[in-house]
Order: sequence, then structure tokens, then C-alpha cells
Amino acid sequence: MVEYKAPLRDISFVMNELLHVENHYSELPSAEMTSPDVVEAIIQEGAKFCEGVLSPLNSVGDSEGCTWSEDGVKTPTGFKEAYKQFVEGGWPSMTGPEEFGGQGMPESLGLVMSEMIGTANWSWGMYPGLSHGAFNTIEQHGSAEQKAAYLPKLVSGEWTGTMCLTEPHCGSDLGTLRCKAEPTADGAYAITGTKIFISSGEHDMADNIVHIVLARLPGAPQGTKGISLFIVPKFDVDAEGNMGDRNAVKCGSIEHKMGIHGNSTCVMNFDGAKGFLIGPENKGLNCMFTFMNVARLGTAIQGLGAAELSFQGALTYAKDRLAMRSLSGTKNPDGIADPIIVHPDVRRMLLTQKAFAEGARAMIYFAAMKGDLVKDSASEEIRREADEMLGFLTPIAKAFLTEVGYEASNLGMQVYGGHGFISEWGMEQIVRDTRIALMYEGTTGIQALDLLGRKVLMTQGESLKRFTKLIHTFCKENEGNELAKEYVEPLTKLNKEWGELTTKIGMAAMKNRDEVGAASVDYLMYSGYASMAYFWARMGLLAKQKLEAGSDEKAFYTAKVQTSQFYFKRLLPRTQAHATAAVAGAESLMDMDAEHFAL
Amino acid sequence: MVEYKAPLRDISFVMNELLHVENHYSELPSAEMTSPDVVEAIIQEGAKFCEGVLSPLNSVGDSEGCTWSEDGVKTPTGFKEAYKQFVEGGWPSMTGPEEFGGQGMPESLGLVMSEMIGTANWSWGMYPGLSHGAFNTIEQHGSAEQKAAYLPKLVSGEWTGTMCLTEPHCGSDLGTLRCKAEPTADGAYAITGTKIFISSGEHDMADNIVHIVLARLPGAPQGTKGISLFIVPKFDVDAEGNMGDRNAVKCGSIEHKMGIHGNSTCVMNFDGAKGFLIGPENKGLNCMFTFMNVARLGTAIQGLGAAELSFQGALTYAKDRLAMRSLSGTKNPDGIADPIIVHPDVRRMLLTQKAFAEGARAMIYFAAMKGDLVKDSASEEIRREADEMLGFLTPIAKAFLTEVGYEASNLGMQVYGGHGFISEWGMEQIVRDTRIALMYEGTTGIQALDLLGRKVLMTQGESLKRFTKLIHTFCKENEGNELAKEYVEPLTKLNKEWGELTTKIGMAAMKNRDEVGAASVDYLMYSGYASMAYFWARMGLLAKQKLEAGSDEKAFYTAKVQTSQFYFKRLLPRTQAHATAAVAGAESLMDMDAEHFAL
Repeated sequence: MVEYKAPLRDISFVMNELLHVENHYSELPSAEMTSPDVVEAIIQEGAKFCEGVLSPLNSVGDSEGCTWSEDGVKTPTGFKEAYKQFVEGGWPSMTGPEEFGGQGMPESLGLVMSEMIGTANWSWGMYPGLSHGAFNTIEQHGSAEQKAAYLPKLVSGEWTGTMCLTEPHCGSDLGTLRCKAEPTADGAYAITGTKIFISSGEHDMADNIVHIVLARLPGAPQGTKGISLFIVPKFDVDAEGNMGDRNAVKCGSIEHKMGIHGNSTCVMNFDGAKGFLIGPENKGLNCMFTFMNVARLGTAIQGLGAAELSFQGALTYAKDRLAMRSLSGTKNPDGIADPIIVHPDVRRMLLTQKAFAEGARAMIYFAAMKGDLVKDSASEEIRREADEMLGFLTPIAKAFLTEVGYEASNLGMQVYGGHGFISEWGMEQIVRDTRIALMYEGTTGIQALDLLGRKVLMTQGESLKRFTKLIHTFCKENEGNELAKEYVEPLTKLNKEWGELTTKIGMAAMKNRDEVGAASVDYLMYSGYASMAYFWARMGLLAKQKLEAGSDEKAFYTAKVQTSQFYFKRLLPRTQAHATAAVAGAESLMDMDAEHFAL
Repeated sequence: MVEYKAPLRDISFVMNELLHVENHYSELPSAEMTSPDVVEAIIQEGAKFCEGVLSPLNSVGDSEGCTWSEDGVKTPTGFKEAYKQFVEGGWPSMTGPEEFGGQGMPESLGLVMSEMIGTANWSWGMYPGLSHGAFNTIEQHGSAEQKAAYLPKLVSGEWTGTMCLTEPHCGSDLGTLRCKAEPTADGAYAITGTKIFISSGEHDMADNIVHIVLARLPGAPQGTKGISLFIVPKFDVDAEGNMGDRNAVKCGSIEHKMGIHGNSTCVMNFDGAKGFLIGPENKGLNCMFTFMNVARLGTAIQGLGAAELSFQGALTYAKDRLAMRSLSGTKNPDGIADPIIVHPDVRRMLLTQKAFAEGARAMIYFAAMKGDLVKDSASEEIRREADEMLGFLTPIAKAFLTEVGYEASNLGMQVYGGHGFISEWGMEQIVRDTRIALMYEGTTGIQALDLLGRKVLMTQGESLKRFTKLIHTFCKENEGNELAKEYVEPLTKLNKEWGELTTKIGMAAMKNRDEVGAASVDYLMYSGYASMAYFWARMGLLAKQKLEAGSDEKAFYTAKVQTSQFYFKRLLPRTQAHATAAVAGAESLMDMDAEHFAL
């Protein structure tokens, strides 16, 4: 079993030293509540809960899984009690608006907590985590009555929420969904249909579950333009928020799946369930997309968490396990062999995990702070710019960070050799749990189309330029700075190449739209390595400056510099392969007749 | 559930058209038994058994797993019956020597059967598969009496065998093993100790199990030079091969693991078990290494099988599943959406799987034919050369093909989107089952050290040159051939670069031995892509020539050409990243203090 230890020093490094969160928070409406002391105390307390309560339940969740019966879904031993403690501790309400009983803290701070929760126990974290979608939908699109009825208990965590999108025949292609909503005499709707893959769709942790359901009104236009949103509570709710009758929505079964066993993945049957329209008719998808970025950033955290947890597990083992002697001479003469951390290839694996985890942290926190601005900045200009930056970074964070997080979880297992395959060590669970992150909330392929098609090409490269300008500025500011040279040189080259690649693909796509799909995933991975390089450059330089200034945390900053150098020497070169493949053209993909793939 | 269909057309292409197996077999002592008709009939019959009997048991094995009790291990429903059929069909004896009741067929033909078995049901295949180690040990190092007592029933498959190497504290580092062998009055030995990770160590499929156990004699030298080999049968065996008393070797428990649930991974307790020395005292490891190449090639097949099976599953789904419209215009106007095989990125995933599966098949069959020569060629010169080529290709096949096979299995799951995560489709099982292949029989890291350290640098590059000479010859022979141009140009460049990389690493390693480990895995992956490129070049050119000659299998050869082009355009560029990383030097790995990895 891997014991999670919250990486508080690194969290603080990214928040305070790299991103100057104090300045950032001081410009938000919640400023007076987010003094450094308070922020620090919240994170410390949160870490304690995640390490002490959630982490030990992680393997329990995996081995027990959830149990379905006619009466509902039973979560693994300890999950319910942990949730009770979580609610009593006031954690769900941290970022909720004060008018509904929340504490009004910035979302980016909530995200730090989400990171610790998700790293300690991803399956558990999905129960409160999925509520955000329901909460956001109602907060942004609900009527005053709906807000009053539902939000206080979603904020307090007494109730949880879900998003019911997918149907058996349609996942990402929501335009084809069939779930129906028939108006009823009382002004409500009767919702009928089957939804699948509903995470946390049914469980025993909260009193009520508020489903947000995508369905079609009678005579609605076909495709994505005929989808409306409905609130469908498990138990009816009156205007004061009191619970009434059991609604006709039931969990028909739960899925047997590769991982995240502790979270219930439900088939939800709506059998004329009472629902309430939320937002305008037929505008359901537009309403949903307003907070898609935040949901996807939430999934990006799974990549970060996988890299972090698997790194922690692998590091412990690499220092303990004795095997072989170092090729450059015995390092542990008193033992029967050297600890495997002496072997260069074991270090390559550990450093890859570490570089991805810490790089991911910087990327996600940076993006989350843009999210704060989108939500709360007083300036329209700042809001718009932050939104564009967030929109650009979100598909990268979601897809790239889950891909490399999955790689990191596999490397962590690999460090254990054959033992990594055995369940009791907990390393293979991380691999299985993480695998879903590359698929839900939009697969890597979907994210890549979003990035290249919608975000980059549809803005004629503007959103890319916004980001490469950051890199350009960094390089400009550090021209002639010897400390920065090892970062500035490759970044300058990269910035140029990134733009050229984009132009090249854009030109090809004007002739053939399939060129977008053909380039997309390699382009996204390229963009991921490139953007992470920017954050590693900043972190590496910052650490060097701290060392130059005589910091007494020599070990920490030295390791940071070394990790940045490892990233530039060992991981960044992967852009070469992605760049070549991204402009290899669509023919080699499209030429083969579908019937000739296997003969 | 994925239904396996043996890719007979491709197997025939590689065997007959690419590698001219008829000529090859005609030079072996078994020549008169291996007429093309017979070979064809064996493969056809084998395919039927794998498709009809083994494939349907693959998901049963995963969901049921094995069950341990004091009395032994029960295998999943149907496994035992399938094994009975297998033995009755004479399959285990196919490659066994005639003097022990075998049919004396070439190992390379056995390997084709192993491919089909392993792709249909890897867990099941490990029961007969593990016998090879025991068989080979006794055949090569046993006394005449030992051979007579054990080999006939190992050949017939009535008994199975295992290799008992690993102990709880030692995996690859066998020098530290502790299992003891004390001489007893009757000239035998009492074997005491615990072995772990013993695949097929205990089961209910065969009457007896013959364990080959590594242990230390009293006063044996420390380290790898003090290890001897012992035969420890589950039931005692007399000189005529009749079974006697139950021996003091028991399965203490079976492991709970990520995949290959259908195969029992046993903790074996030897409690003064009766054992018989095999081969000379203290030379156990040398004896074992004589057939390591073949065992490792057997594991390489798991990579090929994973790519093939996952490709088959993904292809079916990609043609059936409707989602989104093609970006270049609707392809299925009568449906609610287009089949996802129209999307370039889905094709990228499918073609990656296909290119790896077919490329792996060519590499493994080629290597297996070298194995035939090592075993049976009349010419000492040919045996030596084949052995060196096999030695060079084995770590590449084992590590590179399992790495890319694992990638392919993940891509197959990805094609399914969220459904890929759900057990009933069978795609996630392939991922879980395949993951072990990167670790057992020597991890990727161990294989990489074998390749770069032992095979390449210790021969001053001779073994590499033997392979690059093949590439050179191909390029030379096709100089000016327009059909070959798209292969010859990149191969020529690659050949040069491969040599330069090797020299550079070799020079660095003379100063610092850690440079070998630092470069090894990237060097191995580079070598994998490069050597697979050679086989894809030959296959692509051959297919073009068939088309030019007016073959009536236009679809098959066209797809082969297209896959070769995909490989060169989309997969081969990965060498760029590996080349850069391989020569990035050891500092970025070794500089960090072990205590500073996490602070």
C-alpha cells in the first residue's frame, strides 16, 4: 500500500514562490479571507485529512469496490464515515458562494485541496468532486427558486450531484442523444431514458443526489441544438429545500471496470422521473460548456496525482530494495547489494515521474489562477484574457497531463519489477485507476481536436500566441543571463518551431480538413512538452536564484534545478518525434480502405 | 469479449514470402517432416484450436482466476479440459525430440503455434509454455537417467514444468539467493527455501509438475558462482518415470495481481524437498543461460499477441461504432453518425497497433529461425553466426516488442473511449495481462543493459554491425530502385546514426560506467524502432513487387505497403527523441542526492 504524504513544500513553492499567490488573491473579492496564514492553515489541515483519513481507504476502495442492490449502492467500508467527517469539517463549502452558506474561497485554493484528495484517494474524491458540475449548472443557469432549493445543501455537502450526459450509443457525440423530457401538467417534465457511465450516480454517502440530465423536449431540433438541461433530484425537493418523495430515477446496475473500483459508475434509468428545466430550452449544451474548462482541469489533476503518488511509492522502494551493484562501484558495501536508486535507469524513471508531477503542479495551479480571474476579476479585459489562456491550456492540461501521468504510474510500477504487478504493493492500482483519465471528460483525441481545431486554428493562432508570448517574454527578460541560458536557448528554438508547425498544419488543413485530425494528438503532445518546458524553465531559474541568494534550503532548490535540467535534457527531446509526426500529413492515415485493415 | 481470429494470411506472408521458410526448413534435420503442406496443415489445425477452444476461455480465466486451497490450485473453468484436448491432439510434443516421443519439428514452427495460443489466451498458454524451461534444462544438462525419467512425459505434456528462480528478496539479482540444498544419504538433496512468482507452480491440469530449482550447496561460493540446479518433482519419479510419493514442495499461496488471473503465480515452499542435482555443481546459472534467448523470445510473443488481439478488438469496434461526422464530409449519410474509423486519429491508433503487430511478427519469426540454426545447423560457422544474431535481437524483441505491445493494447482500449475501461468488452484485460511482460523474464531495464552492455559494447559493436550489415545490404541491393527509395533513404541515415550513437556511448562509458545504464533504455528503444524499420522496408518493398507483378491479392499487398509507409512516416521518427536522450549523458540522472528526491 502506498502511503500518501502531501508534498507541502512543493505546493508552497509553486503557490508562493513561483506564482505569487498572495498578490493574486489580493486582487480577488475574497481577498480579506485569504491571508497567507489562513491559506497555509487550510492546506495543512487538508493535508492531515487526506493523509490520515483518505489515503488508508484507497486500497480498501479498490479491493472492496461498490455493491449494487435494489435498494441502492453501498460504498466501500469507511467511505461514508470519511465523507461525514469531510462535511463536518466544512470542506465541501470552501469555495461555495457565501450567499448559499459557502466560504467564498478562490477556486484555485479548492483545486489544491482537490489535488491532495485526489492523490490520496481518487475514487473517494469523485463523490464530492462530481457535485461541482451540478452546483455550477444550477448557480449559473438556475432560477432564484432553484438556487434557493438546491444550492445550500450542495454547498454544505449534505447532498451530492452528478452530470448525466452519456447514453449507451453516445459518449462524446452528444448530438445523438435520445433521453426524452415530456412536459407534465404541473409545469415540470417527465424524464425518460437511460444514461450510462454516471460517476457517483448512486451511493450511500449523502442524503440526496441532484442529477443534471441532458434530454430532448418534444419536437426539439435534431443534433446538439435540441438538447435541454433538467434537474432531477433523487428525492423530490420543495421550495425550502426539504426532501420529499423518492423520484423515478434508479440505478439499474454498476459497471465492472479496470479501476476506480471505489467509485460507483452507474447505469441510471429515468422512468418518467420528475425533472425541472434549467436554463433556456434547447440550449443545454451551451450552458454546459460554460464550465467545461474547470471540469477538465479537475480531471487533469488525476494525471498530476498519479505521477505524485506513484513517485512516492517508487521512491520508497528504490531506496529500500537491494539489487545488483552500481556499475560505477559499490555504494553499499555492508549490504548484500546496492539500493536500486543507484542505478541510472531507476533514476531515469523516478526523475521522469518527479518532473511530470512537479511540472504538472505548476501548469495546473497557473491555469487555476486564470480560472479565478475568469470568475471574479473586476476587469472585463482581464476576464477575457484569462478565459482565453485557460481555454488554451485546458485541453493540454487534461490530455497531456493524464497521458504523462499514466506513463509515470507505469514507471512507478516498473521500478518495483515483478512486485509492481502484485496488488498488495498498491502500485498497479494507480495504473488501473489512472487509465480512465485518458478517456472520460473527453478522450485525448477529443481534447486534441479542441486544442488544434477550436482553440488554435479557429483563432488564427491567437490563443497560441498568447502563450508563446509568455515564453518570449521570459527569454527576453533573461537575455544574457548566464543562469538562464540553458533554458532560454531551447525555449527560443521551441517557440519558433511551435509557430511554424501550427502554420504548416493550418495551411494543410485549408486544403483538407482531415489534416487537423491527423496532426492533432501529436500537436497536443508537442504543446504539452513545450508548455511544461516553460514552467520548468521558470522553476529552474527561480531555484538557481534562491541558491545564489544564499538560501538555507540548499537541498530543495538544488533538486529543483536538477529536475529542470533532467526535463530539458531527457523529456523535452520528445518534441522532436511529435513535431515530425504532426506534419507527416493525412495520407498515411487516410489512404487505407476501411475494409483492408485486416484481411 | 474479443474473439480471436488467427491472422493466417499474415502469418503465411511472413513465413513464406518474406522469410522463405521452405528453404530454411529444407536445411534442417527435420526437413522431411516439414513439407509446406504439413506446415500449412499444422498451422490451420492450431488456429482452429486457438480460436475455438482457447479464445472463449480468455475472459473466463480473467474473471474467475485461480483458487488456492491446502490441496492445491484450481484453474478456471474449462482450462483443464482444454489442456486435455491439447495433450490429446499431440500439441505439446510438436517440437520435442523424437527419442523422447516428440515430433522433432523446428522450434520456429512451435513459436508460430505459441503466438496463436498466447494471443488467444495468454494465461492458459503459460501452463504448457513454462514447461520449456524445465524440458530444456534436463535435455541439455541432465544425465541419461534423468532424461529417461522426465523427458517423455514433459514432451507428451502429461507433466508440466516450472523454473524456480526468484525469492522474496531477489529477482534479477540471483547472486543473492538463499535457497539451500543439503546432500542426503541416498545421493539426493534436501531442498529448503521459499521461491516466489512461480508461474504455473501449482495447478490441476497435469499429473505431475517438474520444478527446476536454483539453490546453494553447503559451502558454495557466494554470489552467482555458487548456484546449482536441482530437479524437484511434485511427485517422486522412479527410473522408469513412474510417479511415487508426494514431495515436500507445496504452494503456500497464490498472488493477487493486476492481470493474467488465469495463470497461478505461486509462492512455493520447499521444506526439505527431495531434489536431484542437474548439471555440474555451482554452474547453475551458466546452464540456465544456454536457453535464455528462447525463453525471452517466448515473452516477446506477448507483445506481439497484445498488439494483434487488441487491434482485432479495436478494429471491429471502429467499424461499428457511430460517432461524429468526418471532418472532410459525411461518410455514412444514412446513419446518425459516421463509423469512427473515418476519423484520422482513430486510424492513427489502429495503424499503430497494426504496424507493431505485423512488424513484431516479422522480427520474432526471423529471430526464431536463427534459433533453429543455433540448435540444428550442421555448420559450426552458421550456428555461431546465428547465435550472435539471436543474442543481439533477443533483448530488443523482449523489451521493445513488449513495450510497444503494451502501447498498442492501450491504444486498443482508447479506441473504445469510456467503454474500453469496462471489463465486459475485454479490452482492458489485454492491457492488464500485457503489463507483466515488461517485467518478467528481465525488465526492460535489464534487457537494455544486456543489449547495450553485454551484446553491443562487450563485442566492440560486432553484434550491431552484423545486423546493420543486413540493412546495408538491403540498401545496396536496392540502390536506384524507385520502389525502394522511400525505405532506402531513411534506412541509410539510420544505419549511420545507429553506429555513431553506439560509438559515442561507448566512448563515454570508458570514462564512466554509469553512462551505459543512463543510455541503455533509450538505446534499446532506438534499436527496436530501427530494426523494425528494416523489416517494414523489406515487407513494403516485397508487397510493391507483388503488386507490380500483377498479384490478384491487391487489397492485401496495398494495405501492407500502406502500413509500411505509416511506419516510416509516423513511428520511425520516434528514434529522434530516443537518440537525443540516449546521448544526453549520465549527469542529469546521477547528480541528485538520493535523499533529495523528495523533501
